[in-house]
Amino acid sequence: MDFATLLGLISGLALVVAAIMMGGEMNLFVDLPSVMIVFGGTFGTIFVAFPFEEVKQALGAGFKAFSSRKVQVREVVNIMVKIAEISRREGLIALEHVKTENMVLKKACQLIADNADPSLIRSTLTIEITSMKRRHKVGEEVFKRLGSLAPSFGMIGTLIGLVQMLANLNDPKAIGPAMAVAIITTFYGSVLATVIFLPIATKLKARTMQEELQLEVIFEGAKSILENNNPMLVYEKLSSFLAPRERK
Amino acid sequence: MDFATLLGLISGLALVVAAIMMGGEMNLFVDLPSVMIVFGGTFGTIFVAFPFEEVKQALGAGFKAFSSRKVQVREVVNIMVKIAEISRREGLIALEHVKTENMVLKKACQLIADNADPSLIRSTLTIEITSMKRRHKVGEEVFKRLGSLAPSFGMIGTLIGLVQMLANLNDPKAIGPAMAVAIITTFYGSVLATVIFLPIATKLKARTMQEELQLEVIFEGAKSILENNNPMLVYEKLSSFLAPRERK
Amino acid sequence: MDFATLLGLISGLALVVAAIMMGGEMNLFVDLPSVMIVFGGTFGTIFVAFPFEEVKQALGAGFKAFSSRKVQVREVVNIMVKIAEISRREGLIALEHVKTENMVLKKACQLIADNADPSLIRSTLTIEITSMKRRHKVGEEVFKRLGSLAPSFGMIGTLIGLVQMLANLNDPKAIGPAMAVAIITTFYGSVLATVIFLPIATKLKARTMQEELQLEVIFEGAKSILENNNPMLVYEKLSSFLAPRERK
Amino acid sequence: MDFATLLGLISGLALVVAAIMMGGEMNLFVDLPSVMIVFGGTFGTIFVAFPFEEVKQALGAGFKAFSSRKVQVREVVNIMVKIAEISRREGLIALEHVKTENMVLKKACQLIADNADPSLIRSTLTIEITSMKRRHKVGEEVFKRLGSLAPSFGMIGTLIGLVQMLANLNDPKAIGPAMAVAIITTFYGSVLATVIFLPIATKLKARTMQEELQLEVIFEGAKSILENNNPMLVYEKLSSFLAPRERK
Amino acid sequence: MDFATLLGLISGLALVVAAIMMGGEMNLFVDLPSVMIVFGGTFGTIFVAFPFEEVKQALGAGFKAFSSRKVQVREVVNIMVKIAEISRREGLIALEHVKTENMVLKKACQLIADNADPSLIRSTLTIEITSMKRRHKVGEEVFKRLGSLAPSFGMIGTLIGLVQMLANLNDPKAIGPAMAVAIITTFYGSVLATVIFLPIATKLKARTMQEELQLEVIFEGAKSILENNNPMLVYEKLSSFLAPRERK
Repeated sequence: MDFATLLGLISGLALVVAAIMMGGEMNLFVDLPSVMIVFGGTFGTIFVAFPFEEVKQALGAGFKAFSSRKVQVREVVNIMVKIAEISRREGLIALEHVKTENMVLKKACQLIADNADPSLIRSTLTIEITSMKRRHKVGEEVFKRLGSLAPSFGMIGTLIGLVQMLANLNDPKAIGPAMAVAIITTFYGSVLATVIFLPIATKLKARTMQEELQLEVIFEGAKSILENNNPMLVYEKLSSFLAPRERK
Repeated sequence: MDFATLLGLISGLALVVAAIMMGGEMNLFVDLPSVMIVFGGTFGTIFVAFPFEEVKQALGAGFKAFSSRKVQVREVVNIMVKIAEISRREGLIALEHVKTENMVLKKACQLIADNADPSLIRSTLTIEITSMKRRHKVGEEVFKRLGSLAPSFGMIGTLIGLVQMLANLNDPKAIGPAMAVAIITTFYGSVLATVIFLPIATKLKARTMQEELQLEVIFEGAKSILENNNPMLVYEKLSSFLAPRERK
Repeated sequence: MDFATLLGLISGLALVVAAIMMGGEMNLFVDLPSVMIVFGGTFGTIFVAFPFEEVKQALGAGFKAFSSRKVQVREVVNIMVKIAEISRREGLIALEHVKTENMVLKKACQLIADNADPSLIRSTLTIEITSMKRRHKVGEEVFKRLGSLAPSFGMIGTLIGLVQMLANLNDPKAIGPAMAVAIITTFYGSVLATVIFLPIATKLKARTMQEELQLEVIFEGAKSILENNNPMLVYEKLSSFLAPRERK
Repeated sequence: MDFATLLGLISGLALVVAAIMMGGEMNLFVDLPSVMIVFGGTFGTIFVAFPFEEVKQALGAGFKAFSSRKVQVREVVNIMVKIAEISRREGLIALEHVKTENMVLKKACQLIADNADPSLIRSTLTIEITSMKRRHKVGEEVFKRLGSLAPSFGMIGTLIGLVQMLANLNDPKAIGPAMAVAIITTFYGSVLATVIFLPIATKLKARTMQEELQLEVIFEGAKSILENNNPMLVYEKLSSFLAPRERK
Repeated sequence: MDFATLLGLISGLALVVAAIMMGGEMNLFVDLPSVMIVFGGTFGTIFVAFPFEEVKQALGAGFKAFSSRKVQVREVVNIMVKIAEISRREGLIALEHVKTENMVLKKACQLIADNADPSLIRSTLTIEITSMKRRHKVGEEVFKRLGSLAPSFGMIGTLIGLVQMLANLNDPKAIGPAMAVAIITTFYGSVLATVIFLPIATKLKARTMQEELQLEVIFEGAKSILENNNPMLVYEKLSSFLAPRERK
């Protein structure tokens, strides 16, 4: 459970709500047609820009950003050193039985166990890493786009409200409240983009970079095991991926 | 038929229209000179920025984005494995008879069948892929530009309306309706860009990336067939392009 | 004569003018100090940002974008195949007499005729292509900058008008017309950038990409002639630069 | 102690405060709900976008930007020449005892002393440098994001104030002061971003580039020591990293 | 003396002043607190973002952009051909006595005269060129930042003015002049950025590109002299850097 993310999100929204309530009633900021334009428009249009499958995956990834545990690079380095030790003690063939949920690590172990050509291992892992990056990038792009659609529909809603108000300027007293309503869509769009969509896009980007780093550790580790099967040297090289304070 | 795209487009526009009708009459938002400025200006200027041929192709590609079926990477991987099997059973020369609509796959089969030099195959396919990317990128750029021209002409229309209104401030009652009309061009420009042009540009970009991926599968597959004509190894390598859940 | 470009430009401007005239008199939109600020400021400042020579060349290139005929990639492919045939029939030395206005093609023929070292040919043509790109890029950048200077001076003019109007708020009736004049500079700046400067920048970019493509065809063709002087193979390789429907 | 940075920060803020006080009282610009929205919102949301650890490190790095001494590239060049001299006089093994706080220099000395394979040294140092860059880039990105969150929450606060004011237009006299308060959040957001967050992001970027340069000097120096252990040649090569006036 | 730059700068500013004077008095646009906020804020904050030394160098480089003569690429090509002739007639050792102010050319001559290893020459000159680029880029970045700080402080000043005006809406007659003053900071910021800071940044960028081009000519020339000491071939290759009309 990623506590800081949730706390940040809640405290950010809570402060905005508190500031609103210090200046007046909350229900000034609730308006059904505004919700329809901003939420409906944003989520309708996202399906024009991206295929249904990708949006579904992206929303899932965005939700997981709050709940899943981050695998540390440190752990991946340790796994690679352990694999180096196994392969040294029991031979490369022993890697066939390594159990892992990481697809790339699994493929690396299989290829090493099959005694595949180093250039084949290199090109296969490169494809594997590039494909994973490509799949992960979609989540980030969907949330970035949501973060630009929401303010755009906010502005469209405000323009609609302004046109309707200006066309009926008979009652000067009605101007204020009508403009207040017109502005609410811009408010919705800004809050959605600033507090929710764009920070989640950044978080997904950080996740992707984290995973890329792990894949690079696996890639460099596999190369080291093939070239020079010495667990000490494997650690020496892979520890360069860690921050100084994380090293042994 | 790409159902989600169409549904997204229709629901996005329908929600905007519904929200408009909850606040007043629809015909407040219809104005001929505004249509002339925004639509006419946008489509006139796009021909200054891009050659006639490219705009035509881009509009066609944009329309196809709603109707055409997406070829899955999975299918291309299967085709390459099948080709590897054919070439193994019947010799490389058999690839001359492979039937396909994909220009790059066709050229790859021909070159392999002609027993061409691997470096020639590599450089020819690289040129083929780069040229295809270049041609596809144009569609995306035309729609991106339409998406920036529409709001610009929206603003130009609003400036025209404001100048005309401000120069004739005799009747205070006319200010409101005149400004309402002035704002309509900005509304048109924003809706066109947000709901139609920019999402289609994104969809075309995704299509291009999809096709690039297929070309890379063909490229890597052709290399594998030449180097080591083993259907199992070809699948092992090409399956790295697929998401884990799509693999056998 | 590039008909579509001119038609697009004229129809874009004509629609804006027509829309203006539907709403009032044209001379509301003509104001001498506004012309001075936007045109004078934009063209004065462009000489601070770019050397005199480069601005002159860029304006010339912008004008040519409307008048010059586009050389098709198809034609360059045909020329290279013809050169391959000549060099096969009459020997590489015959290329000395090939007549062409294209500097890069001329240099390529000379170097091949001189029987120069392939690595020298490659590095010389690479420099030639890079230098040409560098020279062509300037035109695009000058027009892009004009397209950002014009709206900036438009805003500066509007700020000047607002300050002068606000400082003299004695006569309420004068506010409207004064603001109308203040807004005109923003209108000028937007129209110049949207309808003229930015589309020409895009057109020049497309031209440059077109020429780059031709240089690549020449480069790959020259390499093919040197490596394997077979017109059929030269065509086979170079046709990859063409769209499928342009191939024989 | 980085005097110019502190002086710039203080003088920038002091001038803004002085200009405020020339036009009225300072307490017009102090408002609790506005502080809550801009500061609370910005610092709450930064924890949604970045993990807790990274924000903590970034704030620490931002603070250090004012206090820490900059290591000159000149000094690193001198150290590398001294190491070259030691290794020449006492053999490569003597590098084991070089004392330094720089992790990369330490690893370089160890690897040379261990008589490691040059390709291993190259790949290990490359990983070390890439990892350090990745860690340092986070600080810059956190401050850049703070610099875009602050104006966004400023605008959100102003929208809240406008809605509340417009919904209660009963007392015309209250309009002015209410709008003044509404605008204050935009003012807070702009000042935070312009004077504090964005300049610190730039300073952290400059620090990172400085450190990268030092790592490149170490990298090139280590390569020179291995290839050709001549202190004169090492200096000749590394001095190319220095500005002409810094060379001996 | 760079006449066009100066003329452009003066004419741009003169036109703005002339347009101001056609609409009223010049002293409407002079206001001390506004000068303090925009100039003081911009130049105070630039020292937070960049070290003192770099700002000093950048301002010097910006001033030199108006005064210094541009070295033509043509001249550098001629120098390299002359050096090739000297080295052919009198041997490579004669290059030790070549006199030049260009640090890179000097180092190239020294290394050739010392009969250094070609790979050492290549790597040393590469470092030299990269370091020079890095140093020159700073000037451009300082002016770009000044060009974004000035409008930001302009907006901050306008926000301050608006808050002060709105909080004291007692006298309706004072509103106009107070807003006029508030807007002046935005005017200052826009003029500084548009007419001075951003164009100088572009000019410095062009200078840097010019110098890079010269360094590439020196680099390619040195390589040619080492590989094949024939002045004719050296010219043949280096003339590719020139525009067609500049060639012999």
